[in-house]
Amino acid sequence: MVLVSPRNPLNIGAVARAMANFGFRRLTVVAPFEAHWREARSAIGAPDLLQNARETSSLAEAVENCTLVAGTGTLTYRKPEQTVVVLPRLGELVEQELARAGRVALVFGPEKHGLTREELGLCHALVEIPTDERQPSMNLGQAAAVCLYELSVRNGSADKVATETGRRGTTSGDLELLAGVVEEAMTSANYRPGAKQETNRRELRLLLRRLAPTERDTRRILGVFRRIVWRLKRER
Amino acid sequence: MVLVSPRNPLNIGAVARAMANFGFRRLTVVAPFEAHWREARSAIGAPDLLQNARETSSLAEAVENCTLVAGTGTLTYRKPEQTVVVLPRLGELVEQELARAGRVALVFGPEKHGLTREELGLCHALVEIPTDERQPSMNLGQAAAVCLYELSVRNGSADKVATETGRRGTTSGDLELLAGVVEEAMTSANYRPGAKQETNRRELRLLLRRLAPTERDTRRILGVFRRIVWRLKRER
Repeated sequence: MVLVSPRNPLNIGAVARAMANFGFRRLTVVAPFEAHWREARSAIGAPDLLQNARETSSLAEAVENCTLVAGTGTLTYRKPEQTVVVLPRLGELVEQELARAGRVALVFGPEKHGLTREELGLCHALVEIPTDERQPSMNLGQAAAVCLYELSVRNGSADKVATETGRRGTTSGDLELLAGVVEEAMTSANYRPGAKQETNRRELRLLLRRLAPTERDTRRILGVFRRIVWRLKRER
Repeated sequence: MVLVSPRNPLNIGAVARAMANFGFRRLTVVAPFEAHWREARSAIGAPDLLQNARETSSLAEAVENCTLVAGTGTLTYRKPEQTVVVLPRLGELVEQELARAGRVALVFGPEKHGLTREELGLCHALVEIPTDERQPSMNLGQAAAVCLYELSVRNGSADKVATETGRRGTTSGDLELLAGVVEEAMTSANYRPGAKQETNRRELRLLLRRLAPTERDTRRILGVFRRIVWRLKRER
C-alpha cells in the first residue's frame, strides 16, 4: 500500500488501521505533508505498522521493485489512459501477478486531488471503486478499507487463474531504466524534439506499462536500444 | 442504515459520506451522544443526508418497520445467538428480502463496545466482516463503507466487466510491418549481425506478439523506429 502526499495524518492512521484489520503489512508513505505522521492516533491496533512504514520522496522510488502498480482515483473528471479495473475484479489481477512471483502496489493519491498525471504514468492499471456518480469522492481511509476488504475477501477464493510460465513482470525501476534509454535514442534520432518532451516522456511510460514486457524481454529491448544509442552517438 | 449511540459526530458524518458514495439515502441515529451531530463536517457531499436523518431514542423504534434487521459487530469475544452471515453473502440475503417487498436495516453499535445483548436481540442476523483475528476492531466509518460497498456491488450491477481503453489489437500484417522496420533499425545499428539473422527475426516476431501492442501503440512505435532508421542511414 502506497500513500502519495497524504495531508492529514489521521487518514494515514486510518489506512494503517484498515491494513491491520484485513491482514496487510507493508505501508509506504511518499512525501508526507506532516513530519509527525507516525504518531497518528487513529492507527488503532496498528502503531507498529506505522512505525515500520517506509518513507520515500517519490512514487517512482516507492514502487521501484513492483511489477504491478495499481493506482486509485475518481475517473469522473478525467479520461483514463490505461486499463481500468473495477474494484470487484482487482483481486483476479493481483492474484495473477502474485502467481508469477510479481510484487503488487496499490497506490492512493492525496486527499483532495488524487494522483497527478505524471504519477498515473507509473501505474499499470487504474482501479475504479464503483461509487454513485453524484458523489464519487471517497474519504481516503474509507476508500482504502473498501479496497483492502475486497482484496482480502477475493484472494484465496475458488477462481484461481491459470499461471503463465515465464511471465514474470518487469519491476517499475527497470521500466524506468528502459524508458530512459528509449528516450535517449529518440533524442539522438531527433524524434519529436523540443516542446513536447514532458508529454512524450509520460506517453512513453504509459506505453511501456501497456506492453508489460517480461523481465527477459525488457533486457532484450534494452540491448537493442543501447546499441542504437551507441551507434547514433558514434556517427556524429 | 441505523447507528446506535455513536459517540463521535465525525464518525456519523463519515457514515453519511459513505452512504452518499454508494447510493444509500436513509439514515437513523439512535440516542446520539452529542446533540450537534447533524453539523458533522466529515459528511462531505452528504450534508442533506445528515439533515434529513431520523433520530429515535431506541433501536426498537428505529427498526419498527423493518422486516430484516442485520446487526454488525465483532464476533470474536461473544458467542452469537442468531444466524451469522459473512459480509460477502449479505447481498443475497438483502436481495431476497427486498424481492418480497421487505424493508432492511443495517445496524451498527457504538464505537467502543458495539451492540448490547439486548440490542442484538432485535437483529434477525449478525453480519460478520471477515477481518484479521489479531485486529478485528474496525473504525465505524470504515466498517460502514465496507458493508455499503459490498451491498452496492453485489446488488444489481454486480457484473460490470473491466473496461480497457483503446485495447483494439493490431493485425498480424501490421505487426509484420513493424517487425520489418525494427529489424532494419537493428541491422543499421549492427546489432547481432550475421549468422543469427533467422533466429533474431523469429524472436522479434514472438516478442511483438507477446507485447500485443494496440493499433495506436503500433503506429507510435513504428514512428519511432522509422525515425531511427532514417537517422542511422543518413549518418553513414
